[in-house]
Amino acid sequence: MLQAVALNCTLKPSPETSHTQALMDKLAGLMRPLGVNTESVRIADYHVPFGVASDLGGEDQWPTIYARIRAADIVIIGTPIWMGVRSAVAQLVVERLDGSYSHADPDTGQFPLYNKVGGVVVTGNEDGAHAAAGTTLFNLSHFGCTIPPNADCYWVGDAGPGPSYLDAGGERHMYTNKAARFMAHNLVYVADLLKRNPIPTRLADLTEEARAESDDQCPPEMN
Amino acid sequence: MLQAVALNCTLKPSPETSHTQALMDKLAGLMRPLGVNTESVRIADYHVPFGVASDLGGEDQWPTIYARIRAADIVIIGTPIWMGVRSAVAQLVVERLDGSYSHADPDTGQFPLYNKVGGVVVTGNEDGAHAAAGTTLFNLSHFGCTIPPNADCYWVGDAGPGPSYLDAGGERHMYTNKAARFMAHNLVYVADLLKRNPIPTRLADLTEEARAESDDQCPPEMN
Amino acid sequence: MLQAVALNCTLKPSPETSHTQALMDKLAGLMRPLGVNTESVRIADYHVPFGVASDLGGEDQWPTIYARIRAADIVIIGTPIWMGVRSAVAQLVVERLDGSYSHADPDTGQFPLYNKVGGVVVTGNEDGAHAAAGTTLFNLSHFGCTIPPNADCYWVGDAGPGPSYLDAGGERHMYTNKAARFMAHNLVYVADLLKRNPIPTRLADLTEEARAESDDQCPPEMN
Amino acid sequence: MLQAVALNCTLKPSPETSHTQALMDKLAGLMRPLGVNTESVRIADYHVPFGVASDLGGEDQWPTIYARIRAADIVIIGTPIWMGVRSAVAQLVVERLDGSYSHADPDTGQFPLYNKVGGVVVTGNEDGAHAAAGTTLFNLSHFGCTIPPNADCYWVGDAGPGPSYLDAGGERHMYTNKAARFMAHNLVYVADLLKRNPIPTRLADLTEEARAESDDQCPPEMN
Repeated sequence: MLQAVALNCTLKPSPETSHTQALMDKLAGLMRPLGVNTESVRIADYHVPFGVASDLGGEDQWPTIYARIRAADIVIIGTPIWMGVRSAVAQLVVERLDGSYSHADPDTGQFPLYNKVGGVVVTGNEDGAHAAAGTTLFNLSHFGCTIPPNADCYWVGDAGPGPSYLDAGGERHMYTNKAARFMAHNLVYVADLLKRNPIPTRLADLTEEARAESDDQCPPEMN
Repeated sequence: MLQAVALNCTLKPSPETSHTQALMDKLAGLMRPLGVNTESVRIADYHVPFGVASDLGGEDQWPTIYARIRAADIVIIGTPIWMGVRSAVAQLVVERLDGSYSHADPDTGQFPLYNKVGGVVVTGNEDGAHAAAGTTLFNLSHFGCTIPPNADCYWVGDAGPGPSYLDAGGERHMYTNKAARFMAHNLVYVADLLKRNPIPTRLADLTEEARAESDDQCPPEMN
Repeated sequence: MLQAVALNCTLKPSPETSHTQALMDKLAGLMRPLGVNTESVRIADYHVPFGVASDLGGEDQWPTIYARIRAADIVIIGTPIWMGVRSAVAQLVVERLDGSYSHADPDTGQFPLYNKVGGVVVTGNEDGAHAAAGTTLFNLSHFGCTIPPNADCYWVGDAGPGPSYLDAGGERHMYTNKAARFMAHNLVYVADLLKRNPIPTRLADLTEEARAESDDQCPPEMN
Repeated sequence: MLQAVALNCTLKPSPETSHTQALMDKLAGLMRPLGVNTESVRIADYHVPFGVASDLGGEDQWPTIYARIRAADIVIIGTPIWMGVRSAVAQLVVERLDGSYSHADPDTGQFPLYNKVGGVVVTGNEDGAHAAAGTTLFNLSHFGCTIPPNADCYWVGDAGPGPSYLDAGGERHMYTNKAARFMAHNLVYVADLLKRNPIPTRLADLTEEARAESDDQCPPEMN
């Protein structure tokens, strides 16, 4: 059984309707028969302050979310589009994940998201899905995730304001339904493959090797 | 032995100095002891017209480049930064790869770049590497490539115009040297893993399944 | 006397050092002798919830910030770079400004930011300034701001982690100092020009005219 | 009478149907009664090599296009979307405009596109208009153009492949028709205002002033 965590970065706390959640739920439903248990986390329901560390203390609830991410094999970020790009909540999540760099494995130097796969779900009433998905998948790959082919699925309406996913009958939109399936199958296959064959790259050793041929000897915490 | 193709998207034809080529060559040198033979293709040395088909006829030389891409296990796009984003030649290459969608495997429906891994190399005298790398890796993942963790490496100088990679001693820049090593090792490991364990996803079947729950029955060539 | 509002979108509340604030202060210092009074607002010092309306009620402090924006002739957004793009706080500010569309002038239909000029300041230890500035200026132009030439200034270091603006001596970086001056002079000239010669475009009338040649009669609030 | 130049960056040479041209023609038709003569240039009909200089010699036809841009008061770039971003031809045009920096006015130091206004038209069968428009307007602002409010108009269909602008009846799409009108009126008003009140900023003097407070004394051609 594989474990997925689905981080919904809608601006709206529960119980407001989240169109992004609806598409994320469809994806989870497609992964379930493939042997994946998906846990959804709606970020706006938690107290997650701005920052780039994994624990900001006080009432910061990111640590519990971060623990679920670390326990998962598949990490999915879902985001609405606002002004053509991903939501402020999605950016907040990515910034908080920046803290994961400092929890590198003491032996290999691998970051905690290594050997997980990443995927992105986007909804918006219009334009911006490529920007939101591309930026987010790239960020996840920097944190250590592997990105399978067709690891994004999105729904957007045509140019300008208009109804959102559920209101527009997006659940019956061919392209989105097809993409969700490609994504589900590829996420699951690659996640399982990596779980059984983890990437052995020793980042710590390679860092030392790089240092030997470089002029700037920046302190370890800056690499 | 794995095969890599390194597409250099500098604006300048040979024999002008290409800083991007220098960093791509470093990457190839790092992959060689890991069992990878890299073939470099400098796009500006070929006649490649604008378009989105795999063969535009006449003197179009894209077909020979495309054949090398199809034969490779690892596809690397190298690009300089111009005005904050990837070069026109890199965009041209991506547009020509759009034609690959129409060469899907008749049985599985998989696109030709499935089961290859993708990576990106970027150089510029300043700012724009994240935009260039993120957009390009995302495009490669749509074409079928899997993106391993840390599959990009870049060198840029600080804000504003300034010397380029070789002129600035970028070859001895710690961050770039480290990233090139992470990239080389991860590309090779995941490429080999996928070669031995190809993704079995049957895109054709999933497309039919999606069609059954969708309203818009767009013609096959539009999916 | 012209009025500028400088919205600092650092993730860090006072009194932590904000490198972005330092560059914004330099810009304000350059505009002062040109007849501009600049008011700084550090968003992280206020309680500004996620959302897309101008007043979310409760303890929402956006309304006081929004009032200052409406009173200004020059709107400057300052942002650090995180993971290659603008900060979550900057995205939050843009999302809250989305609410301004609903305060269109009842006569002309112009949005509240019409006849203001927009500018952007970016700092980061590396790469991402073009993405952050380009996205933000584009958003401001949608809200109604006019963007003068060279209306951005930024400082970034070279590839990879490294010291920030103040720590790296960015205050003595030629390109940034030059760009800050171009920006200051152009913002001031165009702001003054627009104040004396406001744009007369009647958006409401043009909307009706467009409706007459269009099929989709979306409700007014969706236009 | 104001002069506009409309650079169509479709990948397709004449006489193939260009959906982008259709929307650009609509915009020209809206500007005509406002006193604007628009000249269209379809870049793919010319021999324009890759590069970043204003004249690459040989059969380079960019110089004649560049002359028309310099003679215009309004510069409009029209582009289709390919893989979520602007076309390779649009990127080529922006790269060739990079050469304009070296034709700064010998007295003021202003670049040739100062005191012109810029606008962008985008069409695509789906997603990517914000990215294409935002990047392009930002580039134009760096070259010296002023960007009026709502200086872009676009048409895109909903998620996934589908019909293009003309085939989908985009000419009767409310949002696009409205945006085209806002854009036309604002471009014309601001272009006329700047023609009668040119920006007086003396970039050359400000560059010297910046040099005095900076450590790095990069050579003039690098500023």
